[in-house]
Amino acid sequence: MKKVAVVLSGCGVFDGSEIHEATSTLIALSMRGIAYQCFAPNIPQHHVINHLTGEEMNESRNVLVESARIARGDIKDLGDFSAEEYDAVIFPGGFGVAKNLCNLAFDGAACEVNEEIRKVILWMVKLEKPIGALCIAPAMMAKVLPQADITVGQDKNTISVVEQMEAIHHETENCEVIVDEKYKLVTSPCYMLDATIAEVFQGALNVVDEVIQLWNEQK
Amino acid sequence: MKKVAVVLSGCGVFDGSEIHEATSTLIALSMRGIAYQCFAPNIPQHHVINHLTGEEMNESRNVLVESARIARGDIKDLGDFSAEEYDAVIFPGGFGVAKNLCNLAFDGAACEVNEEIRKVILWMVKLEKPIGALCIAPAMMAKVLPQADITVGQDKNTISVVEQMEAIHHETENCEVIVDEKYKLVTSPCYMLDATIAEVFQGALNVVDEVIQLWNEQK
Repeated sequence: MKKVAVVLSGCGVFDGSEIHEATSTLIALSMRGIAYQCFAPNIPQHHVINHLTGEEMNESRNVLVESARIARGDIKDLGDFSAEEYDAVIFPGGFGVAKNLCNLAFDGAACEVNEEIRKVILWMVKLEKPIGALCIAPAMMAKVLPQADITVGQDKNTISVVEQMEAIHHETENCEVIVDEKYKLVTSPCYMLDATIAEVFQGALNVVDEVIQLWNEQK
Repeated sequence: MKKVAVVLSGCGVFDGSEIHEATSTLIALSMRGIAYQCFAPNIPQHHVINHLTGEEMNESRNVLVESARIARGDIKDLGDFSAEEYDAVIFPGGFGVAKNLCNLAFDGAACEVNEEIRKVILWMVKLEKPIGALCIAPAMMAKVLPQADITVGQDKNTISVVEQMEAIHHETENCEVIVDEKYKLVTSPCYMLDATIAEVFQGALNVVDEVIQLWNEQK
């Protein structure tokens, strides 16, 4: 049975992992008979957003502890990740990617990527194992993987940022997937477009199916 | 277009809504072309559980504010709910149901149900509109709706509790659904059984399909 690591960045679209994208990824893996293990870095969240009002709260929360909500407690510290043990890694989106896993939301193309995250990405590429990335997560890939073919949907500002990072951007519609064969990188826009949750789920399922396709090509 | 209210109880299985069940419900509705609106009561959570360790945290959080994470901010105060405006209501599970929406987790068969929740349930029954309930939520229905036909899966203790509340319990396997025609109540065990997330999703989809069937019978 194949096993995929899913890297979370908190719990909630505005300060963590986008919950629908993360859950859709887990459902898609399970539907295809693939085992999964959730991971998150053991670091403070950049901030805590009240998702009802959109305002910042005077609280501090931990990315690993909050991500555990999505994982029903079954989650590991990203510091303990080994690429040897997993057949692919998938990054769901959400502002947590752009605020906690890197600082893209604040520094744009000049952003820095968390060292553990960078290590995971480069390790998977070195072992020629697939990486999936949804929503804004492909922009983080662009920072780590030079000249990656990716999609972040159709948003002009975000496309400009990833092109400043020298990504090769492909505009996409709902549920569409872009595959970069050189990095085995699979990306889909999900909530970077004005998508329904059913379209987000289908996008995640399409990413998983392309990861399976990449495994099959390797045989 | 039909519209369904989804009632949340926080964000995370141990102190709020079970995230996979809540998200699966939203995906299932969207896949079937049904609009949804999330609701939650504007009340404090019973407590906050660190989902990594299982321990209680010295924090206080609000059910509506945390539920907004699952709803991407698009959520309403349950106090503003009108049964006139919705074609069905669905309650995902999670300990939040048994700790925040009622106190079943502490008082068992002698539990009390939040007044707003009780009002929503009885109002829908009065208007002969379907109610769906996943996981532990059917036990809360048993308290409000005498002699309801429900399922909470196969757990002996929970079955004993709902039978003390005079529910008519039906043991079920993964993805199975029990329909109580007199109340138009549709229940499925989801994570009350040792289910995969794909099975939880299928259970939620089966509940939505039975709700659609109840609408069709009404025509």
